Amino acid sequence: MKTVRVGMLGFGTVGEGTYRMVRDNAESIGRRTGACVEFVRIGVRDLDKPRSAEASLFTKDLMDIADDDSIDVVLELIGGEHPAVEVVERCLNKGKHVVTANKELIAKHGSRLISLAKANHLDLHFEAAVGGGIPVVQALKHQLAGNDVIKLLGILNGTTNHILTQMAEQGRSFEDALREAQEAGYAEADPTNDVDGFDTMYKSAVLAAIVFGKQIPLEDVHREGIRSVTTEDLRFADVLGYAVKLLGVVEQTGDDRVLVRVHPALVPKSHQLASVKGVYNAVWVHGDFVGDLMFSGRGAGADPTASAVVGDLVDVLRNIVAGGQGSAIPYGTGAVVSSIDDLQTRYYLRLEVMDRPGTLGQITTEFGLEGVGLASMEMRPKPGGLGEIVLLTHTCREGDFRASLAKITALPVVSKLESWMRVEG
Amino acid sequence: MKTVRVGMLGFGTVGEGTYRMVRDNAESIGRRTGACVEFVRIGVRDLDKPRSAEASLFTKDLMDIADDDSIDVVLELIGGEHPAVEVVERCLNKGKHVVTANKELIAKHGSRLISLAKANHLDLHFEAAVGGGIPVVQALKHQLAGNDVIKLLGILNGTTNHILTQMAEQGRSFEDALREAQEAGYAEADPTNDVDGFDTMYKSAVLAAIVFGKQIPLEDVHREGIRSVTTEDLRFADVLGYAVKLLGVVEQTGDDRVLVRVHPALVPKSHQLASVKGVYNAVWVHGDFVGDLMFSGRGAGADPTASAVVGDLVDVLRNIVAGGQGSAIPYGTGAVVSSIDDLQTRYYLRLEVMDRPGTLGQITTEFGLEGVGLASMEMRPKPGGLGEIVLLTHTCREGDFRASLAKITALPVVSKLESWMRVEG
Repeated sequence: MKTVRVGMLGFGTVGEGTYRMVRDNAESIGRRTGACVEFVRIGVRDLDKPRSAEASLFTKDLMDIADDDSIDVVLELIGGEHPAVEVVERCLNKGKHVVTANKELIAKHGSRLISLAKANHLDLHFEAAVGGGIPVVQALKHQLAGNDVIKLLGILNGTTNHILTQMAEQGRSFEDALREAQEAGYAEADPTNDVDGFDTMYKSAVLAAIVFGKQIPLEDVHREGIRSVTTEDLRFADVLGYAVKLLGVVEQTGDDRVLVRVHPALVPKSHQLASVKGVYNAVWVHGDFVGDLMFSGRGAGADPTASAVVGDLVDVLRNIVAGGQGSAIPYGTGAVVSSIDDLQTRYYLRLEVMDRPGTLGQITTEFGLEGVGLASMEMRPKPGGLGEIVLLTHTCREGDFRASLAKITALPVVSKLESWMRVEG
Repeated sequence: MKTVRVGMLGFGTVGEGTYRMVRDNAESIGRRTGACVEFVRIGVRDLDKPRSAEASLFTKDLMDIADDDSIDVVLELIGGEHPAVEVVERCLNKGKHVVTANKELIAKHGSRLISLAKANHLDLHFEAAVGGGIPVVQALKHQLAGNDVIKLLGILNGTTNHILTQMAEQGRSFEDALREAQEAGYAEADPTNDVDGFDTMYKSAVLAAIVFGKQIPLEDVHREGIRSVTTEDLRFADVLGYAVKLLGVVEQTGDDRVLVRVHPALVPKSHQLASVKGVYNAVWVHGDFVGDLMFSGRGAGADPTASAVVGDLVDVLRNIVAGGQGSAIPYGTGAVVSSIDDLQTRYYLRLEVMDRPGTLGQITTEFGLEGVGLASMEMRPKPGGLGEIVLLTHTCREGDFRASLAKITALPVVSKLESWMRVEG
């Protein structure tokens, strides 16, 4: 048995789970790798907090871990851009393999860090950065690598999926569902990262980089969160046969172009993604040869995320035991990202209008002028001489849909644009 | 770009699909691996058959391919035990990496062949042997390798899942559904391998070997097919809230013991596996840290299987380009397999009985004597003074269930044992 010396950055939920998993499953990990893991140092912010590991392991100096020549592998579990990027870079420069769960780090610096790992014959793995315990990152890098991935749809954030599930099933408002999620520990005190789609954006960008071989500039990712989704929309979607999900979508738009977008969308109930509820995550992939594939499982939490970190660590251990060269798979930069205006999809729209003859005609005329076809349209009277229109379009260009929408909301017969969402799947 | 010379054994559905995929996606495969694939020789049984590749590539002498020193990688896509095992062994002895889609080969000879590959610093990959395009083999070897897998349930055979789906949804008999599947090309003229569970047995044994690190003697796998499943059973299952699926089940039974079994089972409709229909395959895994995980996709056919073969080939190409050591993950032999008698699960039972007072009492008494508890029991009168009993037990030991069943079927009030099945999920 070869002893492999491991340093860890962070001892929060995921760090503690990883430490526990390596300890609990040491025997089977040893059998599978021929290596025995020794935790040497663990970097944390606060040395006074009580921890479930020996006090002597902990240090506040993260760079000390990067500089410790006795350490073979570093597990980066602190999250966020800084100081993670500086410490990981130093680790790679000092000849240490790195396993990270940090989606923001890889989304922003993946191309450079992976190339650095490759140049230094080191492993840099990040299965835990996307989808928690769901093994989608390595599947896209390896088992599906012969495919051209045409499209990928992901439910990548458990917090927002939990909130949307509660809103749909219990009729809760967004605010109530968010507060309950915060009280239950599923959402943070500052929920921006989850509910405004940043977390899903990082994860989608990481998946897109693997699939298309180029890092995606985050400013080119179209991002919308779920704050504007209402219980009314969920109810109308349900009646129309759809569930509402916050999706990360990655798709080829032809000739080396890619579109990456994050937004709530209507998903037909017949699609497998529609039945992914609560804190579960899922990724649906369509490849040119594999066809439709779906992965689902727990996308967050100590144990599922530890599963992904330790899976990566197992591969590093095998690599060290075999005296291998490192298996980082680099990708470049300079992805050409399409504008959301060029998206082709279907749309859901809800308007408040004046309930009078000619209203529907004016609206359908404006759509027609932009070449937007309607699949269904229903109007229901509301108090005060008003009406509510809910419609679904056929597939059209987003730029055309938005142009017609601008003209429609300016019509005197239209009193309010209640909401609109894309339809996917 | 490094040119890698590839030999292929077999040019049937999967071989032709693999050839086409490597050609169609040559540019992206090159970008991902730094290698360019050159097909050098393809071994087939019949040289006169028209093929979609150059005639000069084909040979009838498979050993010639194994002995050709200019070949780096061999793709074994002929299936079956012989001559695949002899040719693959020769390839490995002659320093060739091997990718195989052959479940029978790996189920019967995996331990020996993988150890041989390891000893010779070669790759031996077999993602396509289980679940077609679903990347479950490598996921269990790598991303989930930190977990103790407690239980795995698989729908691993598209033919039987298609037949059961047709029976359930169209009310077809087994014989009619089989004939239609044969006419549609989903089932072979001799359907034994599929409908009697051999195919699922090989695949389950392969997954079990990866999970438990020891080859499973096939004679220790409990195997039942779907010939005895009737439309009546599907109807009763539906009313009770279950679908019927042919499952491969792999589970820990404590202290390094494993139970591997293949049989039709009732699966609750609330379980993700119940909604896997037609020729789709799926694998549900419960690991101690990852929790519940589910993979689904196309389990057979030229393109999905080619996706898995080419995914493995991509890893071999990367390994060759990197000058790596080979990444075979060997497992041993001598697995201790539990008896099906020790299985703990719930059971579905359907009996024809004499419709007279005391019948139910006699049956429940016999179950009670063996410690088998009943969860539900319903009796409906049939013509001729007969009745039909459908019951579900609580979880009990299979040996006890079978013992009580033997006594119950011997009761004078019981005229016929219609059927029984296990409940899973």
